[in-house]
Amino acid sequence: MSDSRNAPCTLEVALGSRSYPIHIGPGLLGDPRWLAPHLAGRQVMVVTNETVAPLYLSRLRQGLAADLEVRELVLPDGEATKTLASVERIWDALLAAGFNRRCTLIALGGGVIGDMVGFAAACYQRGVAFVQVPTTLLAQVDSSVGGKTGVNHPRGKNMIGAFWQPRVVLVDTDTLVTLPPRELSAGLAEVIKYGLIRDADFLAWLETEMDALRGLDPAALTRAIERSCTLKSQIVAEDETEQGVRALLNLGHTFGHAIEAHQGYGNWLHGEAVGTGMLMAAELSCRLGWLSDEEVARTRAIIEAAALPLAAPAEMSVEDFLAIMRLDKKNLDSRLRLILLRTLGEACIHDATPPETLAALLEAFPRR
Amino acid sequence: MSDSRNAPCTLEVALGSRSYPIHIGPGLLGDPRWLAPHLAGRQVMVVTNETVAPLYLSRLRQGLAADLEVRELVLPDGEATKTLASVERIWDALLAAGFNRRCTLIALGGGVIGDMVGFAAACYQRGVAFVQVPTTLLAQVDSSVGGKTGVNHPRGKNMIGAFWQPRVVLVDTDTLVTLPPRELSAGLAEVIKYGLIRDADFLAWLETEMDALRGLDPAALTRAIERSCTLKSQIVAEDETEQGVRALLNLGHTFGHAIEAHQGYGNWLHGEAVGTGMLMAAELSCRLGWLSDEEVARTRAIIEAAALPLAAPAEMSVEDFLAIMRLDKKNLDSRLRLILLRTLGEACIHDATPPETLAALLEAFPRR
Repeated sequence: MSDSRNAPCTLEVALGSRSYPIHIGPGLLGDPRWLAPHLAGRQVMVVTNETVAPLYLSRLRQGLAADLEVRELVLPDGEATKTLASVERIWDALLAAGFNRRCTLIALGGGVIGDMVGFAAACYQRGVAFVQVPTTLLAQVDSSVGGKTGVNHPRGKNMIGAFWQPRVVLVDTDTLVTLPPRELSAGLAEVIKYGLIRDADFLAWLETEMDALRGLDPAALTRAIERSCTLKSQIVAEDETEQGVRALLNLGHTFGHAIEAHQGYGNWLHGEAVGTGMLMAAELSCRLGWLSDEEVARTRAIIEAAALPLAAPAEMSVEDFLAIMRLDKKNLDSRLRLILLRTLGEACIHDATPPETLAALLEAFPRR
Repeated sequence: MSDSRNAPCTLEVALGSRSYPIHIGPGLLGDPRWLAPHLAGRQVMVVTNETVAPLYLSRLRQGLAADLEVRELVLPDGEATKTLASVERIWDALLAAGFNRRCTLIALGGGVIGDMVGFAAACYQRGVAFVQVPTTLLAQVDSSVGGKTGVNHPRGKNMIGAFWQPRVVLVDTDTLVTLPPRELSAGLAEVIKYGLIRDADFLAWLETEMDALRGLDPAALTRAIERSCTLKSQIVAEDETEQGVRALLNLGHTFGHAIEAHQGYGNWLHGEAVGTGMLMAAELSCRLGWLSDEEVARTRAIIEAAALPLAAPAEMSVEDFLAIMRLDKKNLDSRLRLILLRTLGEACIHDATPPETLAALLEAFPRR
């Protein structure tokens, strides 16, 4: 083993008594050093999905001591699984196995698995230990920090849930080898987002390292994930209750949600829609006089370098966008609230965009 | 209105940023002063059951300003309702009404309603405001403090839940007028418990005031509820995570749960089983040389004065008790852990009761 395999990059998410480490690097999954200190007792249940199980479940089990009582639960893959019924399956399995309050749930998979298993842990016997092992780039840079867990309801996404922090997050960059390229790009959209909203230096670094990232260079991935998690944890720490600065994390999301909702969730990946949405936010920021043409061009270039779409769906009209955007949770009263860019590396919350400026952007933005 | 109606007794449960008041007294329900300051926004949903709704729902609504958006949800009465399916009905109703994160859920009813509505509030959009209006004595002295919410699972009681604190608890002693006498006695069992485990003066006061309490004297009820909530909140504050002293709240519960489980939940009320269980704990404490015969006689007398049963079910054998008690959650490893009395007003956790002493108590304890 190389040295880098023995010393992952570690970031501490500071939350008082609920603080926890995120370990990032290649080869972490099968190494018992990173999980063992964070298990609450001897009872461990690994919950994963049918796609991830054959790839990484046995490797994860190598990282769990032989004298633990380990159970496995494999759920179907996909957002359609993110329901209360799936969480009930987890609770049923825990109770059937006689697991007590000192058990630990390990989520092995992407954001859907992490959200569901975290919620199951939050409510099993009023809260048990939870460990995240995210295997998609999006989950690694997004769900690792913030403590949001939950499931969808037929009337809305993430409507049922809890804030519940993990004991440790294990980001094994080796798991990205099996990630479909579209999903890698979708994760890169969120990575780029952190640079755009808060860290111009990181954005510049991403511009030079995008090829290395897409080529799955472990050192570049580790650095990108570490910086993304650090920026997100700074923002969350400044605004745990989601009243102010945390809204900046939604750069590109209002436009992106409109695309996802119009196209039907799953046809565009969330990160793809956010990528296009960030470009729309940049172009609107330019129309408001904040970004220069050159800054918009840089934004477009890095989104393109990440292989993310640069155009909205052909069939989406201006009115389609506006109708969905008006329902956005961020809006207060009847004013449309958008996250825009003052400059590259600095986002702001803006609820005074002139309707005609927004309409002109939506009209002019390319379709494909 | 009398003066006492204008000035309820108020107790503050100290939990840092999650601190909340408990207002106790007659005539609180229809008075808008006690609810208004604690509503998160204009959207309010009152959840109650079919027994309580015709008695107190309209009075509660008088305490809610006319410009609020108030919805009502009436669930069936009884422990069998305390399921995840009922909580889903609450979530469905909230979403159908378009309620957002600034809504408030009000639980109007006994412990089942309080536990379910608290859990629904804990997980709706990752947590919304929650108000408790307990209408049984048991709920007033037990669920008002501690933040435990949840539902039953076919494999166990309270297996799914969360810790979630209310914004305010409104204890209107007038609601006890309609409480069936058996349920009043069941609530008194928990009141007596606080005296037995922690406050000999309160126990002595209860001995003189038991007739006034059973006669629903508002001043006596207010004092008994206030003292019970104060003692519980002291214990909870000393041990939020339920590792040590909080276990003392389970005096009588290990024996009581055995009776409830053997008889089928609902045939004996929880408080009735706890009443008999406390007498069993007192008699065992006497056999261990801690309580005098006179102290046991005082314990028996106050349990009798509260009209609680003094004998275990006729058909329960020593082995019936032991088989169920061995499954108790408080046990560590294979040792039976019991809450016993060092003296009246001082409980202790004891896991070294000689098996033959316990068997002798179970053999000798009266059956009916």
